[in-house]
Amino acid sequence: MRLILIGFGAVGRSFAEILRDKANDLREQRGFEASIVGVITATRGSLYCADGLEPSDLLAAAETGDFATYPDAANLQRDGSASDMIAPGAADALLELSPTNLETAQPALASCYRALDAGLHLVLANKGPVALHYADLAARAAAAGVMMRCEATVMAGTPTLQLAQEALAGCEILSARGILNGTTNYILTQMESGESYAAALEKAQALGYAEADPSGDVDGWDAAGKLLILANALFGSRLTMTDLQVSGISHIRADDIHRAREQKQRYKLIAQASPSGGMVQAMRLPMSDPLASIAGTTNAITLDTDLLGAITLVGAGAGGRETGAALLADLLAIHRCGRNQASDSA
Amino acid sequence: MRLILIGFGAVGRSFAEILRDKANDLREQRGFEASIVGVITATRGSLYCADGLEPSDLLAAAETGDFATYPDAANLQRDGSASDMIAPGAADALLELSPTNLETAQPALASCYRALDAGLHLVLANKGPVALHYADLAARAAAAGVMMRCEATVMAGTPTLQLAQEALAGCEILSARGILNGTTNYILTQMESGESYAAALEKAQALGYAEADPSGDVDGWDAAGKLLILANALFGSRLTMTDLQVSGISHIRADDIHRAREQKQRYKLIAQASPSGGMVQAMRLPMSDPLASIAGTTNAITLDTDLLGAITLVGAGAGGRETGAALLADLLAIHRCGRNQASDSA
Repeated sequence: MRLILIGFGAVGRSFAEILRDKANDLREQRGFEASIVGVITATRGSLYCADGLEPSDLLAAAETGDFATYPDAANLQRDGSASDMIAPGAADALLELSPTNLETAQPALASCYRALDAGLHLVLANKGPVALHYADLAARAAAAGVMMRCEATVMAGTPTLQLAQEALAGCEILSARGILNGTTNYILTQMESGESYAAALEKAQALGYAEADPSGDVDGWDAAGKLLILANALFGSRLTMTDLQVSGISHIRADDIHRAREQKQRYKLIAQASPSGGMVQAMRLPMSDPLASIAGTTNAITLDTDLLGAITLVGAGAGGRETGAALLADLLAIHRCGRNQASDSA
Repeated sequence: MRLILIGFGAVGRSFAEILRDKANDLREQRGFEASIVGVITATRGSLYCADGLEPSDLLAAAETGDFATYPDAANLQRDGSASDMIAPGAADALLELSPTNLETAQPALASCYRALDAGLHLVLANKGPVALHYADLAARAAAAGVMMRCEATVMAGTPTLQLAQEALAGCEILSARGILNGTTNYILTQMESGESYAAALEKAQALGYAEADPSGDVDGWDAAGKLLILANALFGSRLTMTDLQVSGISHIRADDIHRAREQKQRYKLIAQASPSGGMVQAMRLPMSDPLASIAGTTNAITLDTDLLGAITLVGAGAGGRETGAALLADLLAIHRCGRNQASDSA
């Protein structure tokens, strides 16, 4: 399987490392072989070689911050744009790993449509296109007979979408509720042990969990983006941000946490969706709720189903390697089922 | 997909109800159509009709306790044996739903081999054959170009094996540890709230969770059977019961529970396996362990992986409808991937 990557940050580099380290196992145990034929970045240049790029050389060039340092090779093309590179036959799949834009989804969205129209499978770690245009992308993929997958966009490598869409295929999913943002859960967990909101936020920033401007996390927008993807994937909704009620955790005080604990409850930033809509809101959960005991940056989701009742999945919600693993899982699913499944989801 | 069922107890009846109730949705949303062409039971007789049996009539006849009450129809054959009925072309899949025998796996094992050799896919809710002969069955299935699946045997419909084998396909699973027996977890949960072991067991028996002879549950053998299936499926082990250290919960006293609680710990019957072996044992877990908060008959498993760290799945561990749902999930996986995946797992 020949791959073009848009973006080569922590996730792209982790993915390249995983491909390099697991190449033998994947070939022997799964009959799966993949090579990166193209990499497109906004600031480090671009590379394309139909014969495949060398992962170790790619990683070394990325270290230098400039793909101009990638060694010359026969058929190597430098500095092509996404619109040059994404064309029928140029690769089997596009991996969209550029930074998330939850307002326009651009420039990634244009590349996604271009890839599907060119007959490439599409795998995303970038939340923007699937949060804002899931149904259109899925329809375009089905029409082209290819697959569109985005496991990496929700709970990183923890296989949330694969659980909901494949493992629970015989069930109707009635609703989903989860802790989808690790940064806010880390802050709330620190507050449980007595810290103030400000001190917990500062620690989250020092550890790299929260950004200098933390509003995307603490005001609920990151969780809302993931919730849109879930709602659109699980319920075939066409929800947009304006359909969601979104609030965050910045109003929660140490006193609130303390009072909740006295009643054997914990505050959690809960994202929940059903076929009729969704919301992101800090809520007090009884300790008997499986989500109440999720601590630190861990994420978790509970899916309510018709046949199985509640199914809860708990795992890492972030991390370059974890997200890279989700990309591999999506590619293996494409490899396993190929075009069968594209038509199945049509 | 034409199906032969061996066994038509609570699981078989629930499965027939699910097929009947979801027929339209499955056809429209998944392109999946299934009909039960044969049912074989030890005490109620057997039925086979190449044109398909009517689910409602089957369920009505099962209510009477005798398939002789199933209405006459063209091509209907009554009272055939498994060895008569399971033959090339007679069906597409065999569902083995007869009672578990963890000592010999018979008579189910012979039917399983017969089905695979006849080119039928094999789906099991009966733990015996896969607990004792997983590797042989998998090899026989691969040689025949068909699939062997047994989601229903571990945590009922909670998709444990699908999570481990498909959703986490890119990861190496380093170890598995879980609460795989709901009856013992119910008893321990009751003891947490102050009951004696004897009173909690009596309540479990009154509710139908534990049998009159509760030893299969309380001495750890049910959990051990599931652990063997997991170990053999996840690690390609060829472990047998004698390779496992197995103990149960009948030695645990109210005092033990009380002392553990003082140290913020809880007793759980933990089944754990790694490539080097496995054990079932009552253990004290710190409250920070996701398995510590699993209450009542709920089951849970934590898989430790190389790329994703710990992934925990929580859900129902028993129930006719839940187990029936697992059979449907396995059939949908066969339908999705057909022969692709059989060769993939070879």
